[in-house]
Amino acid sequence: MMSRMFGFEIIQGEPNRAARCGRVLTPHGAIRTPAFMPVGTQAAVKGLWPGQVRESGTDIILANTYHLALRPGAELVEQLGGLHKFMGWDGPILTDSGGYQVFSLAELRKIDDDGVTFRSHIDGQWLHLDPESATGVQNRLGADIIMAFDECPPGDAEREVVARAVERTVRWAERCRKFHQRQEQALFGIVQGGVFHDLRALCAERLIAMDFPGYAIGGLSVGEPHEKMVEVLGELVHRLPADRPRYLMGVGMPRDILAAVRSGVDMFDCVLPTRNGRNAYAFAAQKPIRLRNEQYRADERPLEADCPCPTCRQFSRAYLRHLFLAREMLGPILVSLHNVCFYQRFMGRLRDLIPTGDWATMLAEFPVAGAGGGDNGAF
Amino acid sequence: MMSRMFGFEIIQGEPNRAARCGRVLTPHGAIRTPAFMPVGTQAAVKGLWPGQVRESGTDIILANTYHLALRPGAELVEQLGGLHKFMGWDGPILTDSGGYQVFSLAELRKIDDDGVTFRSHIDGQWLHLDPESATGVQNRLGADIIMAFDECPPGDAEREVVARAVERTVRWAERCRKFHQRQEQALFGIVQGGVFHDLRALCAERLIAMDFPGYAIGGLSVGEPHEKMVEVLGELVHRLPADRPRYLMGVGMPRDILAAVRSGVDMFDCVLPTRNGRNAYAFAAQKPIRLRNEQYRADERPLEADCPCPTCRQFSRAYLRHLFLAREMLGPILVSLHNVCFYQRFMGRLRDLIPTGDWATMLAEFPVAGAGGGDNGAF
Repeated sequence: MMSRMFGFEIIQGEPNRAARCGRVLTPHGAIRTPAFMPVGTQAAVKGLWPGQVRESGTDIILANTYHLALRPGAELVEQLGGLHKFMGWDGPILTDSGGYQVFSLAELRKIDDDGVTFRSHIDGQWLHLDPESATGVQNRLGADIIMAFDECPPGDAEREVVARAVERTVRWAERCRKFHQRQEQALFGIVQGGVFHDLRALCAERLIAMDFPGYAIGGLSVGEPHEKMVEVLGELVHRLPADRPRYLMGVGMPRDILAAVRSGVDMFDCVLPTRNGRNAYAFAAQKPIRLRNEQYRADERPLEADCPCPTCRQFSRAYLRHLFLAREMLGPILVSLHNVCFYQRFMGRLRDLIPTGDWATMLAEFPVAGAGGGDNGAF
Repeated sequence: MMSRMFGFEIIQGEPNRAARCGRVLTPHGAIRTPAFMPVGTQAAVKGLWPGQVRESGTDIILANTYHLALRPGAELVEQLGGLHKFMGWDGPILTDSGGYQVFSLAELRKIDDDGVTFRSHIDGQWLHLDPESATGVQNRLGADIIMAFDECPPGDAEREVVARAVERTVRWAERCRKFHQRQEQALFGIVQGGVFHDLRALCAERLIAMDFPGYAIGGLSVGEPHEKMVEVLGELVHRLPADRPRYLMGVGMPRDILAAVRSGVDMFDCVLPTRNGRNAYAFAAQKPIRLRNEQYRADERPLEADCPCPTCRQFSRAYLRHLFLAREMLGPILVSLHNVCFYQRFMGRLRDLIPTGDWATMLAEFPVAGAGGGDNGAF
């Protein structure tokens, strides 16, 4: 069921191949795809003003339902006019369902067919999340795109565990779909199934029968090798409806995004640009810049010579290094902005290349880890 | 001795009274006085981009010689083109002499007529600072206004201790003056003397004989009551040459600045707008806003209804409170900028009022602590 206020247009596809450029239309504006969503976990992209995020080339940001439900609470956000107004971001927003965080952050959880009971990582209180309440919380937050509540098994789970999670995820998706009534929000289904191709295909088939306006791929980028991720996407993505946006959750490093775009994925989110930025790790073509290194002590160059971002236009590597060594909060701020700009420039290059199908330069610039890179980029 | 590239013009004085509006001219532009200098201790105004500092109405910032000499080192800053280029601030900069920090931050110091030996608060290494090296470090940093190296006795020091510090400060000022050769930097003398009027007068007289292009007042706002500060200024400021800028170091709360301007002071610096901003304390007329308080939980209003700053134009108190409770760095960023803007708007109001001499409204808005305020504002 396509929401009345939601749409997806494919503008141009890669000649005879899977990658495509498009536009997702939402009540708060259009999203150029392939799109990267910076993460504003607690209704703030860490260290950045909304205007800076916008000027980086960002069309849409992601916020985390789990965190916002715990603090400040969905009722308060709704009372204050919804997430857009609350955080001063008037572009599109996507909220996740909270499922991933419940399974990765919360303690002492109990899972059954009804939902998940867990203890808040903030104050230890017992809470319950199920398809209806996760959808209701997202309705109140008011994002343009919301996600079905899913079960996320660990990355190394046995086939039997993953199969049960798929069954539950499908049943929960149907409950989310029934509960969700807001026409101005598009509800995406999430395909689980780990690295098991048949389980992924089964999950996709069952969700497609429910006719979601978009489909997400969950449970990848959870520790599996890059090649395994590419293999799963190669088997799965073509099964998803071509006329609906495809969203690969929590991915990832530029090389992962590059590969996923080539298999036909349209949307991505990841904390890496801001998290790494806070830890003195600046993204750059070829090789990241780890600013604490002595080699940058007197380096007068910007992070990237050709980068038009405000950080690169004003500050040297030597100054950025000084800020990190001196524990000045301006260091995380400046490098986070560069990194978000880097990701958006990267997405822009992908969008420009898709109509040509000529990937040689980018594949050389962003080699996979096993092929000489070896830098997993995570903190 | 006036530097060739430095000047001070009085534009308008308060009718028959001490307060005056003026312009300090430097190689990096003019400073409207009375002026407030935000503090960029380590070559960064904490949490703020240089462009944001500029747009707040700031003409000049202060950087700390002690901190920069320890890290990243004055030689490196000079090698990288000086402080302005290093930190991306092309307006006027003032550096302090390092004296105050040596006496307040460093450990295990030894003071004699030559200078001060101390242990770095960063890595514990032994260092020496004296009038020549403090001036040399400031020469290398390259600020527009630099300060003579002075001895800062504790705020509660006995008269005898303060008298010895005055003697030493005067001898050290002469050594700084002799050592300082850079025409593009104006060297200010610092009047010490604690709360002893005759020692202040003596110190001022000896420094005036050396013909500095500007005079600072040190060792106030170190714990004495507001009334004592006002009393010292009332006895001292009129003794300083009317045609030179007067700078009250480390002051302070708006009410302190208001009183000092009325006694004829032209320049101020203080960490309060940024330090308090990082601690959820927003300046506002009448009464500060302590954002952690429950009363702001659902408060949709900006910090100040009439404030044109980017924070007040975009965000509610409820959102700012959420950011602090969620430990999001955007909270300190947004409130630091509001506070700097608040101070600059406050200075603008003072400059507008001086020609009228009509202080009644501002005196009511910014009462002294003992007269009903009771909020010392410090963290």
